[in-house]
Amino acid sequence: MTLIGHLIGGERRNDATRTQEVFNPATGRAEKQVALAAKSTVEEAIAAAQAAFPAWRDTPPIKRTRIMFRFKELLEQNAERICQLIGEEHGKIVHDAAGELQRGIENVEYACGAPQLLKGEHSRSVGPGIDSWSEFQPLGVVAGITPFNFPVMVPLWMFPMAIVCGNCFVLKPSERDPGATLFIAELLHEAGLPPGVLNLVNGDKEAVDTLLHDPRVQAVSFVGSTPIAEYIYATAAANGKRCQALGGAKNHAILMPDADLDNAVNSLLGAAFGSSGERCMALSVVVAVGDAVADALVARLREAMRGLKLGIHHERGNDFGPLITRQHKDRVVGHIDSAERQGAQVVVDGRGVRTPGCEEGFFVGATLLDRVSPEMDSYRAEIFGPVLQVIRVSSLEEAMALIDAHEYGNGTCIYTRDGEAARYFSDRIQVGMVGINVPLPVPVAYHSFGGWKRSLFGDLHAYGPDGVRFYTRRKTITQRWPSASLRESAEFSMPTLK
Amino acid sequence: MTLIGHLIGGERRNDATRTQEVFNPATGRAEKQVALAAKSTVEEAIAAAQAAFPAWRDTPPIKRTRIMFRFKELLEQNAERICQLIGEEHGKIVHDAAGELQRGIENVEYACGAPQLLKGEHSRSVGPGIDSWSEFQPLGVVAGITPFNFPVMVPLWMFPMAIVCGNCFVLKPSERDPGATLFIAELLHEAGLPPGVLNLVNGDKEAVDTLLHDPRVQAVSFVGSTPIAEYIYATAAANGKRCQALGGAKNHAILMPDADLDNAVNSLLGAAFGSSGERCMALSVVVAVGDAVADALVARLREAMRGLKLGIHHERGNDFGPLITRQHKDRVVGHIDSAERQGAQVVVDGRGVRTPGCEEGFFVGATLLDRVSPEMDSYRAEIFGPVLQVIRVSSLEEAMALIDAHEYGNGTCIYTRDGEAARYFSDRIQVGMVGINVPLPVPVAYHSFGGWKRSLFGDLHAYGPDGVRFYTRRKTITQRWPSASLRESAEFSMPTLK
Amino acid sequence: MTLIGHLIGGERRNDATRTQEVFNPATGRAEKQVALAAKSTVEEAIAAAQAAFPAWRDTPPIKRTRIMFRFKELLEQNAERICQLIGEEHGKIVHDAAGELQRGIENVEYACGAPQLLKGEHSRSVGPGIDSWSEFQPLGVVAGITPFNFPVMVPLWMFPMAIVCGNCFVLKPSERDPGATLFIAELLHEAGLPPGVLNLVNGDKEAVDTLLHDPRVQAVSFVGSTPIAEYIYATAAANGKRCQALGGAKNHAILMPDADLDNAVNSLLGAAFGSSGERCMALSVVVAVGDAVADALVARLREAMRGLKLGIHHERGNDFGPLITRQHKDRVVGHIDSAERQGAQVVVDGRGVRTPGCEEGFFVGATLLDRVSPEMDSYRAEIFGPVLQVIRVSSLEEAMALIDAHEYGNGTCIYTRDGEAARYFSDRIQVGMVGINVPLPVPVAYHSFGGWKRSLFGDLHAYGPDGVRFYTRRKTITQRWPSASLRESAEFSMPTLK
Amino acid sequence: MTLIGHLIGGERRNDATRTQEVFNPATGRAEKQVALAAKSTVEEAIAAAQAAFPAWRDTPPIKRTRIMFRFKELLEQNAERICQLIGEEHGKIVHDAAGELQRGIENVEYACGAPQLLKGEHSRSVGPGIDSWSEFQPLGVVAGITPFNFPVMVPLWMFPMAIVCGNCFVLKPSERDPGATLFIAELLHEAGLPPGVLNLVNGDKEAVDTLLHDPRVQAVSFVGSTPIAEYIYATAAANGKRCQALGGAKNHAILMPDADLDNAVNSLLGAAFGSSGERCMALSVVVAVGDAVADALVARLREAMRGLKLGIHHERGNDFGPLITRQHKDRVVGHIDSAERQGAQVVVDGRGVRTPGCEEGFFVGATLLDRVSPEMDSYRAEIFGPVLQVIRVSSLEEAMALIDAHEYGNGTCIYTRDGEAARYFSDRIQVGMVGINVPLPVPVAYHSFGGWKRSLFGDLHAYGPDGVRFYTRRKTITQRWPSASLRESAEFSMPTLK
Repeated sequence: MTLIGHLIGGERRNDATRTQEVFNPATGRAEKQVALAAKSTVEEAIAAAQAAFPAWRDTPPIKRTRIMFRFKELLEQNAERICQLIGEEHGKIVHDAAGELQRGIENVEYACGAPQLLKGEHSRSVGPGIDSWSEFQPLGVVAGITPFNFPVMVPLWMFPMAIVCGNCFVLKPSERDPGATLFIAELLHEAGLPPGVLNLVNGDKEAVDTLLHDPRVQAVSFVGSTPIAEYIYATAAANGKRCQALGGAKNHAILMPDADLDNAVNSLLGAAFGSSGERCMALSVVVAVGDAVADALVARLREAMRGLKLGIHHERGNDFGPLITRQHKDRVVGHIDSAERQGAQVVVDGRGVRTPGCEEGFFVGATLLDRVSPEMDSYRAEIFGPVLQVIRVSSLEEAMALIDAHEYGNGTCIYTRDGEAARYFSDRIQVGMVGINVPLPVPVAYHSFGGWKRSLFGDLHAYGPDGVRFYTRRKTITQRWPSASLRESAEFSMPTLK
Repeated sequence: MTLIGHLIGGERRNDATRTQEVFNPATGRAEKQVALAAKSTVEEAIAAAQAAFPAWRDTPPIKRTRIMFRFKELLEQNAERICQLIGEEHGKIVHDAAGELQRGIENVEYACGAPQLLKGEHSRSVGPGIDSWSEFQPLGVVAGITPFNFPVMVPLWMFPMAIVCGNCFVLKPSERDPGATLFIAELLHEAGLPPGVLNLVNGDKEAVDTLLHDPRVQAVSFVGSTPIAEYIYATAAANGKRCQALGGAKNHAILMPDADLDNAVNSLLGAAFGSSGERCMALSVVVAVGDAVADALVARLREAMRGLKLGIHHERGNDFGPLITRQHKDRVVGHIDSAERQGAQVVVDGRGVRTPGCEEGFFVGATLLDRVSPEMDSYRAEIFGPVLQVIRVSSLEEAMALIDAHEYGNGTCIYTRDGEAARYFSDRIQVGMVGINVPLPVPVAYHSFGGWKRSLFGDLHAYGPDGVRFYTRRKTITQRWPSASLRESAEFSMPTLK
Repeated sequence: MTLIGHLIGGERRNDATRTQEVFNPATGRAEKQVALAAKSTVEEAIAAAQAAFPAWRDTPPIKRTRIMFRFKELLEQNAERICQLIGEEHGKIVHDAAGELQRGIENVEYACGAPQLLKGEHSRSVGPGIDSWSEFQPLGVVAGITPFNFPVMVPLWMFPMAIVCGNCFVLKPSERDPGATLFIAELLHEAGLPPGVLNLVNGDKEAVDTLLHDPRVQAVSFVGSTPIAEYIYATAAANGKRCQALGGAKNHAILMPDADLDNAVNSLLGAAFGSSGERCMALSVVVAVGDAVADALVARLREAMRGLKLGIHHERGNDFGPLITRQHKDRVVGHIDSAERQGAQVVVDGRGVRTPGCEEGFFVGATLLDRVSPEMDSYRAEIFGPVLQVIRVSSLEEAMALIDAHEYGNGTCIYTRDGEAARYFSDRIQVGMVGINVPLPVPVAYHSFGGWKRSLFGDLHAYGPDGVRFYTRRKTITQRWPSASLRESAEFSMPTLK
Repeated sequence: MTLIGHLIGGERRNDATRTQEVFNPATGRAEKQVALAAKSTVEEAIAAAQAAFPAWRDTPPIKRTRIMFRFKELLEQNAERICQLIGEEHGKIVHDAAGELQRGIENVEYACGAPQLLKGEHSRSVGPGIDSWSEFQPLGVVAGITPFNFPVMVPLWMFPMAIVCGNCFVLKPSERDPGATLFIAELLHEAGLPPGVLNLVNGDKEAVDTLLHDPRVQAVSFVGSTPIAEYIYATAAANGKRCQALGGAKNHAILMPDADLDNAVNSLLGAAFGSSGERCMALSVVVAVGDAVADALVARLREAMRGLKLGIHHERGNDFGPLITRQHKDRVVGHIDSAERQGAQVVVDGRGVRTPGCEEGFFVGATLLDRVSPEMDSYRAEIFGPVLQVIRVSSLEEAMALIDAHEYGNGTCIYTRDGEAARYFSDRIQVGMVGINVPLPVPVAYHSFGGWKRSLFGDLHAYGPDGVRFYTRRKTITQRWPSASLRESAEFSMPTLK
C-alpha cells in the first residue's frame, strides 16, 4: 500500500511511526496510507525552512519569480496526473478537479508578478534633505494548514505568494487527500526551487500544534471549519504570530422576482451540488422573494435535478462524486433527516441514492428542501453536502436581514436585473464576497478571498493583494546624508518639519 | 479639584464612582482627578458608537473628510492650550509638546486624503461579461488604547483615520494624563463630528477588558509596553477581533568610525534625552565601532550634557522635564544603580539632580553609561528614562548581531558617510524602522509606524497606508448581467475562465 | 473703470498698453477692462516662475501642501466675494457659482494629499545588491490656459496640483471674465505662497503663443474649444512640450423605456439649461429609445420648462443667466433658426425671451427641439447654449451608434433601471465620462476628467491621479554600493540578472 | 537571396515592389533583402489591426495574458535562433544578443501581470448613493517604430504591453536588421495570438508617414534619434494622436576621487564599448573630478582596453562587433578625427583596427580620448560608436553643471562611496535615468524607461507602469440607481456634494 510521506529540505521522507488510511471515497476502500508527523518531524521541517531562509531572502525577487513561471508550465503539463490524484483521494470528478487546478494555477500566475507587487513606497524630501521609503521584506518561516476539499487550489493560494515574497514555507495539507498536494510540491522543486524553501508535512493535531507553538514560525494561514479557525487564530496570537484563519460558511442566494429564472436555475445547480457541496463557497440556501418565484424555482429545480449523475471521478459524464468520509456522509444524511422532522419539505431526496459500481462509496444524492425556516438545525449549520434549502420571504429587506443574522459571512449572491437592488444589496450586506447574478463569487486570483463575521479571523484576506501584505513585513527607512560642513544643533523636541 | 471624565455620545460624563489622582510630575502634586469607568460605562460608550455607526458609514467619505479639515484648523488654533494640558499632566516641555502635537496633526492631514486612500480595485472583464471589484468598507465599532507618553499624538495616529474610514471609535487614553486627549476629542466635535462617532472613556484594566471582550468591538489598536501588548493581542484574538498591539523598544544607534561626529552628538542628545527618554523611539544605546570613536563620543557627550536643563513644562529654556510618576523615577534610578553595580562606568550621573522650584518633581538627570555589556540588566530592559548607554564593538557585523539578538526591534539607526554600510545595514537589520544618520526614524504620517520582533504584534503597522487597511474590511463583488435571451448551461465544475 | 491686470512675481501689474472691455452679460454693459499682455509681459511672468523654481522644488512636499490647506480655508471664507465676481463677469446665478467654487475647492482638497500622491516606487534587489526606484519630480515652469465658462473651477483643476508637485505656474485665464480668477490667485499668496510660484497674465492670442513657443515652459494644460485645442496641442508638441488639450463636446443622454421618467426630467433640466448650457459637460441631446418614451419626455419637459426663470446673477430664485457675449447669443439663436429650417420641431422656443430689468442682457431662453436628426447643423455643432435636442431611435444599439459616430466623446449618460443595459453601454460607448442615471458625469476631484475622440488631445486626463502624473517627470535611479574587496569583471553584454 | 517581408493579419507577405539590402556588418556583404512597404501595404496592416480589434478588446485580460506566458516560453526555447538573427544583421556578439533578448523577455514577463496592472480605481459613495470608478480601456490600433540597435528588445518594450492591454499593433522595425524582429512576431502567433492583433511592416519614411497620418492609428511609440523623434512627435500631435518619442543621448559618468577605481574601470569598459557603443544608454563621457583620479583612470583604461577583442557575432570570445553600416563607421571615424584636430588627446586609437577574417566589416576599435572639452564637436554630438571621452573638472558641482548644460538627458551615473554625493547628484541632475555606481542605469522592466530634456518627447516613459498608462485610455463612470419612490428636484447649479 502506497505510503504518502513528507517533503523536507527537498527530500521525500517516508519514515513514519504513526500512519492513517487514505480512502478512495467512491469505492469506500482505503487504498493508501499517510504518515502522521511527530513533533520532531515538524521541527525538522521548520529547521529546514529556517536554514534555507538567508539565501532565499537574498535571491532577487525576479529570480524567485522565474521559478514560478516554470512551475506554471509544469502544473499545466502534469494536469492529468494531478486531477487523477485529486479524484482518487477526494472523489471529485475530473472536470471539477481540472477547474480546481486551473484556479490554483491562476494564483501561480499572479505570483509571477511579484517584482511589481513587492514595490515599496518612496518619498523624496520628507524633510529638508531627508528621504523615506518603505520596503516589504519577507517574514522568515511561515506555515499553511489546508483543508481536504481543495487539496491543490488552497495550498496554491498560499505557498506560491509566500515563496516569491522571500519566505520559506511549511505546509500541512489535509491528511484525507494529501497525494496531489505532495505531487505539486515536488513539481515546484523540479521547477528549480532550492531545497528547504517549501516543506510539506502530513499530520494531525500534533503537527498543527507544533506549527502554532514553535517560535520560528512567523505566520500561519489556515483554511478549514470555524471552530478550528478560532482555535488556530487564538493560539497563533497567544504565541505572538500573525495569523489569517478562514472558517465556515452558509452562502445564501437571493432570488428576486425579476430574475432570469433559467439562468438562475442553471447556475444554482452547479453552485449547490458541484463537488457534492463540499466547498466553502457552495451555495446552500436560496432565499426566494415571493411565493410565485419560489414555486417556479422549486418546480424547475426538481425537474433539472433529475438529470444529475453521481459516480467515480474519472467518468466525465458524472456531475459530482461522493462525500469525503463515511462519517461525513452520515452527518449530511442526519441533517436531511432533522430538516424533515422539523418541518421542511423534502422535494428531491438524495438519501439512499444508488451508484452502480460504487455501492460502498460515500454518496448522497442531490437534495432539495423547501419551506425551510431559520430555526431549523439544518439552516443553522454548515452542511457541506449536496443539499439545497429554500427559504421563502416577502421582501429584499427581509432576505437581507436573514443573511445578516447568520453567524457566517463568507459569500452571497443576488439574482436580479435591477441595478438598484444589486447596488443596495452589495453595499449593505455583511458578507465578504458578493455575487450579482454570479452564484459562486470566488474572487479571481488578482483580487483577494475572504469572508466577514465568523467566516474569517484576521485582517488580511487570502491571496491576491492581501496575500502579498500578509506574507511581508513593512520596514520603513529614513535617510539623511549630512554635509560635513554643516553643524546642526541638537533637537530635544519631537522632530517635525519646520 | 478638576475631575476629568468621559465623552460618550457627544456628551461629557463626569459621574464617577471610582477615581484616581492625576499628578503634575514636575511639582509632584496631584492637581486633578480622573474618573475610572465601570464596565457599564464602557458598554454605554460602545452602545453610543454602535448607534452612530449606520448613519456614519452611509456618510460619503468626502463629507467625513471635511470634518477632519476643520479639526486640523481647530488643533492649530488651540495649540497653546493643548500643549499646556500636556505639560501639566505629563511634564513635557512646551516645545516638545508642540512637536508632539504637530506630528499628531500630520496624521489628521493624512486622513484628509481619505477619498483617495479608500479607493478599491476594479477589474472589467475578469471573465466574459463579468466584472469584479474590491471595496474597503468600515468595520463598525473599533477601539484604541493609548499610552501616557504621547497623550495627543498616539490617539491621533488612530481615531482620525478610523473615523474617516467610516468607523465609530471608543478611545481609552492613559489615566496618567488624559486631559489633553479629552480636549482634542471635544475639538473634533466642535469641528462637526456627529455624536457617538468618537467616544472617550477613562479607566484602568476594567475598561480595557470590557473593550477586549465586548463582541460589538471589531478591532483594537494598542500602544504601550510589550507585556501588555501581548496580553491585548492574545485576548483580542481569543475574542475573534483583529488587533494591532505595539509594545516596547530598545533602540540602538551604530556609530561608525567615518561618521560626522558633531552631527551625531548633537542629534543623539535630543534622541536620548528628549521627553526624558520616555518615547518608544528614544535612542537609548549607542554601539560604537572601535574604541577611538567610542572615546571621542563619550568625551563630547560628557561635555555636551553639561548644558542640559531640566524643569517645568512652560519654561522654553528647559530641555526636558520630569518622569511620569515617582514609581517610574525610582525604577529608572534603580537601573542606573544596577548598571553601576554590574560594571558599567557612570560617565554622567543624573541621580540626585537638583531642580530648583520643583524639588518634589519626579526628575532624573541625563545619564551616560559607558562600557555597558549585553548581559547587564540595564541593557536587557527598556528603561524609558534619560539614560544613554554606550557599548563598544569592533565591527559593523558585531554591532548588527547585537541588535538582532535583542528581543525588541522597533527602531535603530546608523551614523556613517558610507553608502555601502548604510545599504547593508538597512537591508539586513531585523528592525522595523531604520534611520541612516537619523536617530529617531519615526516614519512620517504618510508612511506607517511599526517595529518588528516583540515590538509589534499583528500584521499591519500603525497609521499611514497600513492604518487605512487596518480600519477597513475588504468586500469583493463579482457582477454579471445576463442577457435575457441567453440560456446558459449549468456548471458543475469549479468555474474558471475557459 | 476697473482695470484687471496681471499678477507676476507676487505683484499686481496694472500697466497695459492694450486692453479689452469686460462685460456684465446680464446688463450688456462693459463695466471693467482687462489688460492684454504683450509678449514681453508674458516673458516676465515666465521669468518670475523660472526664478522661483529652484527654491520651490526644494521645499518639501508637505510644506507646499500646508499652503493648500490654508488656501482652502481662504476660498471658503471668501466664497461670497468669489461668486459675486463670477456673476458680474460671467452671468452665472449665485447658487451655480457656489457649485463651481465648491467643485474647485475639491481639487484643492485633493492637492492637500500630495505627499501620498507623489510617492515613487521602490524596488529592493532588482539584482544582487542593486536597488532601483522611481521618483516623480516637478517639471519646472508649466502653463495653463482656461476658458470663460468656469473662471474659478478650471484654473483650480490645474494650478493647485501643479504647484504642490513643485512646479511654478503661469496661468492665462479667459479675457472674458478674469476677475474671479485673479482674486483667487491673490488668495493663494495670502495663504503663504512664495512670489513667482503662481503668475497670472491676462491676454489673447499673443499671450497664448508666447507660452506655446517659449522654451522655458515645459508643459501646457488647456481647456476650450476643439479647434483651439488642436492648435494648442500641435503647437506645443512642435515646440517639444508635453500637452493636454481639452476641447468641445456634444453630450447625449439615452432614455430607455424603463427609465424613471420623473427623475430623468428633473435631472435633465439642470444638466441641459444650468449655466445656460455653457458647460462642456452640458447635456444637449436626448436620444429617446421608442416614440412612447419620447412623447412622454417631450410632454413633461414642455411642462417643466415653463417654470424656469432667467435673470441677474445675484437673485437666487433665477435658474440660469445670460450667455457670455452678444455674438454668442446670436450664434445660439442662429442654431435654433437653422434647426427649425431643417425640419426640427421647436417645442419650447427661447428666442426672444423677455428678461425684465435686463433688457440689454445676452439672454436666450430654454429651448426644446424635437425630432432632430443627425444631419442637422444644430446636431453636428456644439451649441453651448440652453438648447436641448431630442432624437428618436428604436433601440439601444441605434442610440449608441449615433453617439459613437459623433466627433466628440466627452460625456454621455443612460437612464435605465436595467443592470445589463447600463453595463453594456458603459463598457462599449466611445466616450470618456459615462453616467448611469447621472446626467452630468463630471468625475469627482479624486478621479480624473477627460473625454475621448476629438474632445481631448493628449494621453493624461485633467486633475486627479492623471493630473499628478502630468505635472511630474519620472526619474528612475539604480543604485549599487560596491564592496571594496570585490573585484568585478567587465560586462560587455547587455547587463541582465543572471 | 532571402527577402524579409511583412506580417499582416497573421500572414507573411513577401510581395514587394521596393526592396533594400540588409548587410552583415561584420562581412560588409549584403546577404538579405528587406521589402519596403508602400502606403497601401501599411494601410492593409492598419486595416487588419482595426478588424481584429473588436474581438481582441472583448477578450478578457487574463486570456490575453496567457498568450504572453506562452510567448515567453517560446522566446526562451528559440533563444539561439534569435541571437543568430540579431548577429547576422546587426553584428552584435552572441552573449550581448542574449542579454538583449533577456531584457526583452523581462518585458514579456511584466506584461504577464496585466490583470493586476489594468485595475481601475473604484470609489463607493462619491455622493449619496453614487459610485464612481475609472477603467483603463484599450485605444484601438497603435503603432511602434523601432531602431536598429535593439531589433528585439525595443519592440518587446512596446507590443507585449500594448497587446495585453487590448490594443492591436502595427510595428515598423528598423530596415537595417528586421529579421529577428519578424521572427519573434511569428513566435507570438505560434503562442496563440489571433491574426491581426500584431502586424509588422518593413519600410522607410513612406511607411512611417503613413502610420503618422492615418486617422485609425491612435498612438505612436518611437525610439530613435532626436531629430526624427521631434519629427514623429510633432507630426503625430498635428494628427491628434498621443505619442511618446525617445531620442538621442550623451551619457556622462562622474568619477569621484573616492570611487572604487577597479570597479569603475571594469564597468566602464562594458558600458562604453559593449555593442560598439551603439546603445542609447552607452556611457560615452567620463567626467573625472580632479586630475589625480583622471590620470589613474586613463592609465588603467589604456591598459584594460588592450585586451578587447572585436570580430564576428558567433565567436563568444569577442567583446564587441562592427558598426551597423559603412556610412556610420565613417561618421564615427570622422568624430575621432575632429576631436584630435580640436585638441583632444587620442590615448587609444581605434581607427584602422584590424579584424582578420572580417576585413570588409564596418569595424572601429575601442577609442579613448582624454582632455576633451565641452566645445568640441565630438562632445556635442551623439557618436554612437566605441569612443569614450574623458573630461576633467575640479568639483562635483562643475561636473553636474556640464551634464545639465548638454541638450540630452537620457542616462548618467556617478562613481562614489559617499552617500551624500550620491543623493545630491541623483536628486538634482536633470537626467531621467540615474546610476549610482551603475554605469548603464537602464531601469528594469517593472520600472519605466525615459530620458529628460531632448532625449524624450511626451509625458509617459516607455514600458513598465508608464507603458500601461500610455497604451490605455481612462474611462470614468459615475453611477446612481434611483429609487422609484423618490422624486427629486432639478439641479441647475453645478452639482456638488451638499
